[in-house]
Amino acid sequence: MNAPETIQGAAPAYADAIRFLAADAVEKAQSGHPGAPLGMADIAAALWRGHLRHNPADPQWIDRDRYVLSNGHGSMLLYALLHLTGYDLPIDELKRFRQLHSRTPGHPEVHLTPGVETTTGPLGQGLANAVGMALAEKLLAAQFNRPGHTVIDHHTYVFAGDGCLMEGISHEACSLAGTLGLDKLICFYDDNGISIDGDVAGWFSDDTPKRFEAYRWNVIRDIDGHDPAAIDAAIRQAKARDARRPGPTLICCKTRIGHGAPGKSGSHEVHGAPLGQAEIDAMRAARQWRAGPFEVPADMAQAWNARERGAALQRQWEAGFAAYQADYPEEARELLRRSRGELPPALAAAFARLLADGSLDQPIASRKASQLVLEAISPALPEFFGGSADLSGSNLTSVKASVWVNHHGAGNYLNYGVREFAMAAMMNGMALHGGFIPYGGTFLAFSDYSRNAIRMAALMGQRVIHVLTHDSIGLGEDGPTHQPIEHAASLRMIPNNRLWRPCDGVETAVAWQAALRRADGPTCLMLSRQALTPYQRTTLQQEQIALGGYVLEQTGAPQLVLIATGSEVAIASAAAQLLAERGVHARVVSMPCVELFHAQDQAYRDRVLPPGLPRISIEAGVSWFWRGVVGDQGIALGIDSFGASAPAGQLYAHFQLTPQAVADAGMRLRAALPDPHSRALPTS
Amino acid sequence: MNAPETIQGAAPAYADAIRFLAADAVEKAQSGHPGAPLGMADIAAALWRGHLRHNPADPQWIDRDRYVLSNGHGSMLLYALLHLTGYDLPIDELKRFRQLHSRTPGHPEVHLTPGVETTTGPLGQGLANAVGMALAEKLLAAQFNRPGHTVIDHHTYVFAGDGCLMEGISHEACSLAGTLGLDKLICFYDDNGISIDGDVAGWFSDDTPKRFEAYRWNVIRDIDGHDPAAIDAAIRQAKARDARRPGPTLICCKTRIGHGAPGKSGSHEVHGAPLGQAEIDAMRAARQWRAGPFEVPADMAQAWNARERGAALQRQWEAGFAAYQADYPEEARELLRRSRGELPPALAAAFARLLADGSLDQPIASRKASQLVLEAISPALPEFFGGSADLSGSNLTSVKASVWVNHHGAGNYLNYGVREFAMAAMMNGMALHGGFIPYGGTFLAFSDYSRNAIRMAALMGQRVIHVLTHDSIGLGEDGPTHQPIEHAASLRMIPNNRLWRPCDGVETAVAWQAALRRADGPTCLMLSRQALTPYQRTTLQQEQIALGGYVLEQTGAPQLVLIATGSEVAIASAAAQLLAERGVHARVVSMPCVELFHAQDQAYRDRVLPPGLPRISIEAGVSWFWRGVVGDQGIALGIDSFGASAPAGQLYAHFQLTPQAVADAGMRLRAALPDPHSRALPTS
Repeated sequence: MNAPETIQGAAPAYADAIRFLAADAVEKAQSGHPGAPLGMADIAAALWRGHLRHNPADPQWIDRDRYVLSNGHGSMLLYALLHLTGYDLPIDELKRFRQLHSRTPGHPEVHLTPGVETTTGPLGQGLANAVGMALAEKLLAAQFNRPGHTVIDHHTYVFAGDGCLMEGISHEACSLAGTLGLDKLICFYDDNGISIDGDVAGWFSDDTPKRFEAYRWNVIRDIDGHDPAAIDAAIRQAKARDARRPGPTLICCKTRIGHGAPGKSGSHEVHGAPLGQAEIDAMRAARQWRAGPFEVPADMAQAWNARERGAALQRQWEAGFAAYQADYPEEARELLRRSRGELPPALAAAFARLLADGSLDQPIASRKASQLVLEAISPALPEFFGGSADLSGSNLTSVKASVWVNHHGAGNYLNYGVREFAMAAMMNGMALHGGFIPYGGTFLAFSDYSRNAIRMAALMGQRVIHVLTHDSIGLGEDGPTHQPIEHAASLRMIPNNRLWRPCDGVETAVAWQAALRRADGPTCLMLSRQALTPYQRTTLQQEQIALGGYVLEQTGAPQLVLIATGSEVAIASAAAQLLAERGVHARVVSMPCVELFHAQDQAYRDRVLPPGLPRISIEAGVSWFWRGVVGDQGIALGIDSFGASAPAGQLYAHFQLTPQAVADAGMRLRAALPDPHSRALPTS
Repeated sequence: MNAPETIQGAAPAYADAIRFLAADAVEKAQSGHPGAPLGMADIAAALWRGHLRHNPADPQWIDRDRYVLSNGHGSMLLYALLHLTGYDLPIDELKRFRQLHSRTPGHPEVHLTPGVETTTGPLGQGLANAVGMALAEKLLAAQFNRPGHTVIDHHTYVFAGDGCLMEGISHEACSLAGTLGLDKLICFYDDNGISIDGDVAGWFSDDTPKRFEAYRWNVIRDIDGHDPAAIDAAIRQAKARDARRPGPTLICCKTRIGHGAPGKSGSHEVHGAPLGQAEIDAMRAARQWRAGPFEVPADMAQAWNARERGAALQRQWEAGFAAYQADYPEEARELLRRSRGELPPALAAAFARLLADGSLDQPIASRKASQLVLEAISPALPEFFGGSADLSGSNLTSVKASVWVNHHGAGNYLNYGVREFAMAAMMNGMALHGGFIPYGGTFLAFSDYSRNAIRMAALMGQRVIHVLTHDSIGLGEDGPTHQPIEHAASLRMIPNNRLWRPCDGVETAVAWQAALRRADGPTCLMLSRQALTPYQRTTLQQEQIALGGYVLEQTGAPQLVLIATGSEVAIASAAAQLLAERGVHARVVSMPCVELFHAQDQAYRDRVLPPGLPRISIEAGVSWFWRGVVGDQGIALGIDSFGASAPAGQLYAHFQLTPQAVADAGMRLRAALPDPHSRALPTS
């Protein structure tokens, strides 16, 4: 690949094609952010024209370079690049920037636009996604490349602005990227000195190059972000890996926000508002750009188009892959399977064995049951990539098959350090890269720290699995800072997220199975610290776990339904016994995944929760969530204040979550209800 | 103050009193973290005995030094210090470490234990709290000190471990602390090389001193954390402020986790589990500690007791304050008022004027109404401290009275930079310090980033106000990454948090008033980007806003209740008109604060939502939350998927949140219900 050419003299530069498309689109939409696209256009042109290995005709080519625009508000930069290089993003889509059903939304959205690798906008997360992608590349290369066969070898490039670097997640992700020595991660820092509120000097005075050196990154300082040759040289330097300097690279580019807009560049006014037609006209004059709005001169368009070069690159790779296939057919099949996100056939068998062998039928914590599941299935699932935010011994996420990642990219398990948010966003990046199904553990209370990355996984439809242990007051003495009260309810509110709270080992296994089978969104597994009583189930009951809620037991023709999750299912069971002693028969419904249960058809839901039967829910968390389940006449038993520091058993008594209290509520409810509600149903 | 003495030779050191209390308490509880108390005991002894200005008899003395244990799991370190120096924390409380109703919970909790300045445990947040406290001190000093009268002059000391420094919030808070030049913030980094999962080298290889130098901190490197003289010298150096080096100070202490435990120190095993009696016995022998469990030798106890010294310090300060009072009686009154958290009388008048003058009765966004409120009340509320996470121009948090904080501590407004989490945790620190009522803005979607700090404010009962704008799809083109769907519901789930979503200017003013009057917890104000129609209200209606929900209007004797919040109230109003045209009379209930409405007595709630009248809720967010409000027969209209990028009006149509759709739902509901539900009630 050659150094990017500049159109010499006063003639427009390649970057100007980006500038005008961005300015015109923002102007037409009367909404958007021209500052970053104009300011980073020269860097983008140098990278995309001179270095990026991609094929616009096949955005899914597995060995393509990954490009992440972490400052996602500059989306028009990316759309312009995709359009110019020949992705399936016609000019009409750019004209419909930020309009309903267009492929050019306000912030880039993966799956909506070909060539967009991740959804960005929430600052800092794109950068962490990129760290995850670069890690995935390194691991995949270590697993699949063979002597003489380099089938995985690509870079991850990321653009980041001041905003991304102020965010805490940039510390977490970049610190870890340095430790991991991710050589092929190259980050361009758009050092324009401006954020939304103005000149950053008043609130951001970091010596950023020094900070990144402290993270063990290679730092290339003081690059003129408007000098194509300087940018090209920096990229070459970054790509020329050197065993003595094994870290990722930060290229610090001094730029001018809105560069090219003669009257407005260098000011925060250009950040997030249309330039105005007068300013665009002035820019056209200044840059000698004679094409009209949304027009790209033919020679410029041709110079940008990367379809031919991209096709050649991919053909070359495919020839290499064919040779690899010939020499390593099994590995090649495996790589393709993993890239497609298909589960291996052996996995179902591993689950079946585990569920049949009785090893889960013991009184263990669901976090321990989860570890037994991981022990059983990990050998059958090579794409499984585990980890924990420094709580491996508490989350029980590490198993015998877990090999901690080393500097050479070997391993399938990472201690992310105490970095919950980066962990979640890196897992998103790994899932987006392909080839891996990441899971990671922390305490449920600290899912707050990673919450927006869980949301992003849900928005992007990514298969990542959060192992969230110590799931309520049952964790005991660590007290209210560590006791999640509102977390189950809050995580259930995120669209397309699934939360499981299993009541014993078998439910834990089914929850894991559901999480792995779910290819289009994240799953949160909410697990206990304390031991849970195992239940015996019929085959039908065991199958029904996967429906999210089912009848676990009843003492007779039910007059009352007790609905519970996790550790509170045993309380419901004991309450049912107490009620039976008082002559009232109760049904116990276990509802490990409320969202899934409510996605079942009405007939099934009515079979489990017969209309007219009074309901009591029991969950050691905020009760509000359950009001919609128990209905107007029902009772939601929970905890609506913060927890406390004490041994778990005492806390359950203190918060009145005991079989006695549930039975008392049942008797109250029966007494309060008119006759029709208390009629018995036949046992089912 | 003198340098701490060491008991020479083989005799036990002062720090050993901490070590044995901590080890004994963890052992008795069979739960807790001995590693940090043992490892940091020498640093704590040097600081508390040699430097800390405090009076155990008066933990509320306003000019005391603040001490924060950011690694809150080491709580026994703090409890030992409080007990030894003479706070009201008798030895029996230490014996009840981590037991129900004790004053020694698993993690330190402010308000529960005298001398605890903030609740810590969620890593990194204590450090950010301390930054907020140091900022509060600097601001208060600038506002109240006068020539010859230094009434505010204290340090903020914070202990932080590897975990705190790995967390992203440490980057946000410490970067900003450097920019702000908070000289009197002194942080001790417990560099023991161990975190829960073992030796941190595998996941934390930062050059931390260099990183903090990049933040413009003074860094004191390579202090032996077990050498009292070296620690003392470092503290002296940190306190000797130097105009040429205006930043906060990081003292990097090399320590051995669990130092003193002969068989287990230096290992992660000592982090979070009891040492075991044998190891404690061995430690007793090795340290020549002859006192039994929970015993402190009399001479040691006397040497530790700080009541006399503390009383003298406070007496000296009080003498100075008396002189200040004589010369500056107004300022002295103000300082005391603000320290007590009492609102100034002028505030109520400012609200009354604003509500009477009609300036809010215009079609403006609620974020704009919020700004008008801030304009009106800020001059009357000198303790008000505003800010935004780099979105001042979007959140509209800055007003004419806002003066941006400068290096000298003047100002009442801070651009926190793109640092949502640090902003929230710093606000908690400012509120805890006293003298300020902090408010800070960001986009509602990014309250996810700061969520755990909002939770901590709720847990600690602190008056902080979050201005969360761009509150749903009404923000339009920025798309789903920026459109909060589940956030209102999720924030309402946090115990002791209050969320307001006002429908117009007057409700916005009342929401602000409620937030300020609420001294025992945080408030989230959820505000629109787009203009909202102002309503006319009776005096009674205006008063009822403060009840959280009230009857806003009805077209006749109501047959149906439409319940809405914020921008959807106008949709409900329009739907009521459509329904009236179809012969159905609807009541419109505005419910800006659901939690508060549900805290009213049943009689009021029944007056507003008459039992038996069918209900429809309308909120542009997840509908699940509202099921409990509308009841079994009601309909909750909302959005249960992510949003999209398009102009706001099109999005409301796309997501079927229109007057037409609401009216249609009303007609369906009426048709489906049996007669008794559709009976009309008298107009009220």
